[in-house]
Amino acid sequence: MTESERYEAGRRILSTMLGEAAAEASAEKMRTLHPEFERLVMTHVMHDLYGRAGLDIKTRLLCTIAALTVLGRPEQLAVHIDRALGCGATRTEIEEVVLQMSAFGGFPATWDALTVLQGHNR
Amino acid sequence: MTESERYEAGRRILSTMLGEAAAEASAEKMRTLHPEFERLVMTHVMHDLYGRAGLDIKTRLLCTIAALTVLGRPEQLAVHIDRALGCGATRTEIEEVVLQMSAFGGFPATWDALTVLQGHNR
Amino acid sequence: MTESERYEAGRRILSTMLGEAAAEASAEKMRTLHPEFERLVMTHVMHDLYGRAGLDIKTRLLCTIAALTVLGRPEQLAVHIDRALGCGATRTEIEEVVLQMSAFGGFPATWDALTVLQGHNR
Amino acid sequence: MTESERYEAGRRILSTMLGEAAAEASAEKMRTLHPEFERLVMTHVMHDLYGRAGLDIKTRLLCTIAALTVLGRPEQLAVHIDRALGCGATRTEIEEVVLQMSAFGGFPATWDALTVLQGHNR
Amino acid sequence: MTESERYEAGRRILSTMLGEAAAEASAEKMRTLHPEFERLVMTHVMHDLYGRAGLDIKTRLLCTIAALTVLGRPEQLAVHIDRALGCGATRTEIEEVVLQMSAFGGFPATWDALTVLQGHNR
Amino acid sequence: MTESERYEAGRRILSTMLGEAAAEASAEKMRTLHPEFERLVMTHVMHDLYGRAGLDIKTRLLCTIAALTVLGRPEQLAVHIDRALGCGATRTEIEEVVLQMSAFGGFPATWDALTVLQGHNR
Repeated sequence: MTESERYEAGRRILSTMLGEAAAEASAEKMRTLHPEFERLVMTHVMHDLYGRAGLDIKTRLLCTIAALTVLGRPEQLAVHIDRALGCGATRTEIEEVVLQMSAFGGFPATWDALTVLQGHNR
Repeated sequence: MTESERYEAGRRILSTMLGEAAAEASAEKMRTLHPEFERLVMTHVMHDLYGRAGLDIKTRLLCTIAALTVLGRPEQLAVHIDRALGCGATRTEIEEVVLQMSAFGGFPATWDALTVLQGHNR
Repeated sequence: MTESERYEAGRRILSTMLGEAAAEASAEKMRTLHPEFERLVMTHVMHDLYGRAGLDIKTRLLCTIAALTVLGRPEQLAVHIDRALGCGATRTEIEEVVLQMSAFGGFPATWDALTVLQGHNR
Repeated sequence: MTESERYEAGRRILSTMLGEAAAEASAEKMRTLHPEFERLVMTHVMHDLYGRAGLDIKTRLLCTIAALTVLGRPEQLAVHIDRALGCGATRTEIEEVVLQMSAFGGFPATWDALTVLQGHNR
Repeated sequence: MTESERYEAGRRILSTMLGEAAAEASAEKMRTLHPEFERLVMTHVMHDLYGRAGLDIKTRLLCTIAALTVLGRPEQLAVHIDRALGCGATRTEIEEVVLQMSAFGGFPATWDALTVLQGHNR
Repeated sequence: MTESERYEAGRRILSTMLGEAAAEASAEKMRTLHPEFERLVMTHVMHDLYGRAGLDIKTRLLCTIAALTVLGRPEQLAVHIDRALGCGATRTEIEEVVLQMSAFGGFPATWDALTVLQGHNR
């Protein structure tokens, strides 16, 4: 597989998550941060990791939301809530992951993540 | 609901995860650490959180494994790998969560978690 | 003890920290984030943990401020500075905890926490 | 104040925490790690921070224990449990700090810290 | 060496990083947070640590940027990008450190740090 | 560039760090953890990141050591100390990075990292 094939495959996974228009807007935003960053997100994070078999993409995104809740990355949490909703996760499922994380990352982690969720309308 | 009803309900959830013998061994181990700690795990973590509707228990445990991978808590990761396997998660599904976390908590987090998985036989 | 008794006992501890009006405002804010989150804060964090004997509540809050300083949770730090002041901690005592944390969580953690303190008037 | 006066003042604070024999053993252990590290612990951590007025040293050590519990530094936690006990903290007070941290750093942080406490006899 | 000599030596290192006017503005900002905090930054962080031989100051600042990227301290990251640029680091070198940290602190850490870099003009 | 070309290019970078025999031993150890993990380390971490222009590989490794010190990943720190020494970093330079991190990740982070360094002979 060539690099551009890897890029295209990863880019399609992001479209599956967000729809094509929002995926392109997200890609463009990353490109303005750093062109190589956007390329690595598509080829490595999307294609190499999210594109793997063995676990469905909705469960993968709920796991990412769990990780971002305990790590305290509110901007990235907002980004991934969008992606999870786009892959069929319900708001209730996301809330349940965030509530459960109070026992693993602490109540302040859950409080901050619920604040992100509250400010989030899709 | 009384406190002892909450305890029994939480304790049953742990049995569902591990089978009764291993659940009692786990509870006893926690009691020797601190009796109140064991009580809070059963009433709060098991009953209040894992016992909620809205998300199946296997997905909840995969989310916990994601969180423990990025937080770097190897002993707790081993504990929760057992629980996830007991709830129907496959070793492949757990490996996929751990591999994916390389993009969210870094490759050292995944390396350490794969080492825990390697030392783990059920 | 029933669940509603646990809730009332926890809710009274928050009133002790903040006064009744501010406690109700805080509870209402949590309820809008998620009703279950507010219930768990009162029953579990307030009643099960802060309500325990063995350590006075002012020392407990100074320990929480230490933890939030090193974890980097500025919104929660602001919330707990209010509670600590309401339990008789002085601004100097809080500053001392924050300064000391420079040796345990690093100078950036202390810098960020001093910024929260500076923006905080009670 | 000269550097050697700062060193002696800091070194005396460690003796207050541990007794002279254990303080010298601890200092020697740090010196074998790196001579400058030991010097900075005495002059900066002990003298500049623990030596400050405004908060008693026992409360300072309980705050350090809170921080180390949520940060996940088991070796350092063991070191500071010794120091806290030497400054008049009781084992119960330390256990209370560790239990409370379950709400701020998560149950795995408390579990790991209780394991350190269990293995600790003074 | 007296305390005021240590202060002056540390303060000169900050001037080397930022130029005298920006160094004084930075010192004044820290003093308003807490006078002792500013003193400890100059005597301990600047003089005791950055002032050591054995590693050049530009490499030291790139290492600090690596640490702040994975720790998630955006305000402090902005502060240290200024200092690194003032010591001869190029924007490309800083971007390379931040991109590389995606493998050690995760892509969300790099995304947040690139956002800080984007908002930063010197 | 094909995937196998990316793999070979990344694998050569590891050989540059460690020498061929130690690089193959390290690769084999990763393969037993998970074949895909080893492949991603070579193609993504080694080729995509360490293989980039814009910053020399010794400085990159010192930055990684800074990050691992503050993150608290002792096994990975040992792995990267070997790689840094193999790329021309001196033990003194590594010690300086670790000492400096006391101001950014706290003294416990530096203490733990010095313990790793002490146990490390190449």
